[in-house]
Parts: sequence; structure tokens; C-alpha cells
Amino acid sequence: MTTTMPMLETYPASINLDRAELAATIDSLIACSAACTACADACLSEEMVRELTTCIRTNLDCADICATAARVLSRHTGYDANISRSLLEACVVACRSCGDECASHAEMHEHCRICAEACRACEQACRDLLATIS
Amino acid sequence: MTTTMPMLETYPASINLDRAELAATIDSLIACSAACTACADACLSEEMVRELTTCIRTNLDCADICATAARVLSRHTGYDANISRSLLEACVVACRSCGDECASHAEMHEHCRICAEACRACEQACRDLLATIS
Amino acid sequence: MTTTMPMLETYPASINLDRAELAATIDSLIACSAACTACADACLSEEMVRELTTCIRTNLDCADICATAARVLSRHTGYDANISRSLLEACVVACRSCGDECASHAEMHEHCRICAEACRACEQACRDLLATIS
Amino acid sequence: MTTTMPMLETYPASINLDRAELAATIDSLIACSAACTACADACLSEEMVRELTTCIRTNLDCADICATAARVLSRHTGYDANISRSLLEACVVACRSCGDECASHAEMHEHCRICAEACRACEQACRDLLATIS
Repeated sequence: MTTTMPMLETYPASINLDRAELAATIDSLIACSAACTACADACLSEEMVRELTTCIRTNLDCADICATAARVLSRHTGYDANISRSLLEACVVACRSCGDECASHAEMHEHCRICAEACRACEQACRDLLATIS
Repeated sequence: MTTTMPMLETYPASINLDRAELAATIDSLIACSAACTACADACLSEEMVRELTTCIRTNLDCADICATAARVLSRHTGYDANISRSLLEACVVACRSCGDECASHAEMHEHCRICAEACRACEQACRDLLATIS
Repeated sequence: MTTTMPMLETYPASINLDRAELAATIDSLIACSAACTACADACLSEEMVRELTTCIRTNLDCADICATAARVLSRHTGYDANISRSLLEACVVACRSCGDECASHAEMHEHCRICAEACRACEQACRDLLATIS
Repeated sequence: MTTTMPMLETYPASINLDRAELAATIDSLIACSAACTACADACLSEEMVRELTTCIRTNLDCADICATAARVLSRHTGYDANISRSLLEACVVACRSCGDECASHAEMHEHCRICAEACRACEQACRDLLATIS
């Protein structure tokens, strides 16, 4: 269990989103970012790296975007729904692209299979949270 | 002068965007991210910090989002227009919010004035680049 | 359970460090970084924010340093013991400072108590891993 | 010209390091981080990518470490010399490794030549600043 939910519960002011849903999304973003960072490096060490360069690049993008989104969603002071929404939309796009790319190598590379799952789960969590932002 | 344009010129494959416009946007994103990081810390040391908490939070968001966008735009391998577009749109939103917030303190705090200018310039650079992405 | 260990197990070449210990450290770094990001924002929303500015700043540093270390330790291609060692040493210093700072507010602020624990655990994990790097 | 020095001049409290030297180091760190991000991607698109995987990995590490150091050095509130020092030492190590690696490909790849120069300049700036931290 992560400290995401306990930390949300100690925030000393109101939070504009459902705390359980928010915690689930933050945890998915962090997990996706970590999986993408590891997958980029695993691809880099495959003998067939030349065929995995798009996968590596998309992994690096998705890792950066999800890490940033996890940080933004962990801040509640001076909440700005527009920033959260637009960044979650960017996460959906990045997770979709990276999930598709990794899924296409999933039968050959187990790291791509695990990473594709993390991307799919994160994409869904971001979509679910987006649906609650008016 | 930064090494952004020289590095773009050495990229060994084709780049789908205009290199001069791309370099200008990357440099604006990096400058905006640095200004926001510094402005957040300067606000934190102001005696009236309690009135600057929204500014600090928006600075932190804008710093993270622009830094990530600079990285994503610096990658051309396996280019994905959807990722670039959605992230640039998030930058426009973050720079607009942060620019507005900092501008509202610009007469009192010089760091907010400089930061607001960096946000405005970055917002415009992102809009200009977005207009060229089909 | 995170995907850190499963991803390590799929890495297609040798890893120079003990995989279980490495996974534990990466997970501690990610958890500490997330807790520090949340604690900085919680402190920012406290009425007594003026007395928490050092805590906020140290939280931001610790969040950045631990996030970077988690990424570096998640890469095994072209392993360079000197980089891992020097960065783990920086983490020990940052976690010590941030843990001390948060601990001094732990009785008053629950978010500082949780964050101090995450810093202490991360500091120890980094020390343990450092001891295995020749 | 960047806004690093103007932002340092607007910081509303004392700064424990020489502002000109600090600004030069922050700018070098930002430039090195940007060059390493671009070089990693350029290497990824080279036909001989299999021979550049160590270069890519070291570029990614150096980019992350220098970006984090630029942020830490841009914060002055609650200054902690130990954190700055240990992180600058990690930068020296990363810039040395990355500079050596890129220099070894400099005759064949212009992006590696430019990146090696950025790493050397950054390593020197970090050493110079370190010498002033008691």
C-alpha cells in the first residue's frame, strides 16, 4: 500500500475531487511512469533494439508525462481544474500510444507486456478521473 | 545562444516540424520552467507568503509541465503528433494560468513580473507551434 | 505490489546489484518522492505556512532528487557504479535533511509525520544498497 | 541571455553563494540537460544504435541529474549546503561519464561532439561552484 491515500487524508483544506478516485489515479500514474522508465531501458538492451526505437521513445515520453501528472494531481492548493483536465488528456493520449506500441511487442518481450498493462490501467484511471472533472 | 538549434541540425533523420520554430518553442519552454521554479522559491521567501500560495502552486505545475514538454519536443524518433499536440495544449493552459497569476503580483514582486513575461512568451510559442501541427 | 520487481526480472541482460534489494530501494525512492510532493503542498495550505517554508523547500528538493534516483536505478544498460553511488549519497543527505525537518513538525502536522517516515525508510534503503556497491 | 541572473537578483532574502557563479552553474546544468536529452534521441535514430546504447543510457542519467540539480540550486529558501554539495558531486560524476562517453563518438556523430562539450562545461561549472561551498 502506498502513502498516497493517507497523505490525501491529511491535506488541511478541501479537495475538489473524490479522494479515493484521485489516489487511485495518482498511484496508476506513478506505476505507469516507473514501468515505462524500466521498459525503455529493457528495450535498449535487447539485441533487436533497432526495431524497438519507437517503443523506447514512446516509453520515455509516457514516463515523463505521467510523472508530471502525478505531481500536479498531488497538489490541491489553488486548484485549477483546467490544468488538471488538460494534463489528464495528455496522459490519456500518451498512455494510449505507449500501450499500443508495447502491446505490439508483448508476445516477444515480457517487459513490454507488463508495461502495456500499466499503460492501459493508467489510461483508464485518467479517463475515470476526467469524467468527474466538470 | 543555446545548443537547441545546433542539436536539432545534427538529428540524423527527418523532423516533422519546422526546426527553427521547434527550437524557439523548446527554448521558451526551458526558460519558462526555470523562471517558474525560481519564482516559486522567491514567493516562498516573501513575508506575505500566505497570499502567494496559489502563485507558488501554479508555478510548480507550470515548471513541471513545461520541463516535460521541452523533453518530449526534443525527441523526434517515432514522432507521434497526438502526444506533441496534447502536451502543447496542456502547456498553453498552464502558461496562461501561471502568467495570469504572476501578472496579478507583478507590480509588487519583480520575480512575478519576470515570470509572467516568460509564461506569456512560452504560451505564444506553444500556440504558434500548435498551429503548424496538422 | 508494484511492478518494479517483475520489471527487473524481465531485464534481458545481467544486473550488477541484488535485484530484491534494488527493487526495494527503487520503491522506497518513489514512495519518498511522492510523499514529499504531497507534504510540500499540504504545508503550503497550512495557516502557519510562514513557519513551514524550510520544510516546503526541503520537500521539493527531496522529491526531485529521489525521483531522479529512482529513474537512474531503474536503468541497467551500460551500468556505471560511480553514478549510482554518488546519486545514492545525495539521496541519503536529502532524505536525512527532509526527514529531520518533517520530524520536527510531526506532532503538529500528520502529513509531516508520514513524510518523515517515508524519508527515514528511504534513507535506510539507500544506505543498504550503497553498502553493496563496491 | 536567460532569466536566471535577473531572477536571482529579485530573490527577496540573502543567498549563500555568489550570484554570478550560481547563475552560470544553473545555466550550464540546464544546457547540459537539454543537450543530453537531444543526444539520447539522436543516438536512438542512428543506424548503429546497438553500439550507442551505453551512450543513450548515460545521456538519460545525465539529463535527469542535471535537471534536478538546476532546480535545487534555483531554490534558496532554507538553504542546506549539504544537499547542494552532494548533488553537485553527483553532477560532476555524471557529466564526467557522459562527457567521456560522448567524446568517444564525437568524430563520428556531431550530436555527441556538441553534447560532450556541454558535459565538460557543466562539469567545470559544478567543480567551480563546489569550491566555493564551505
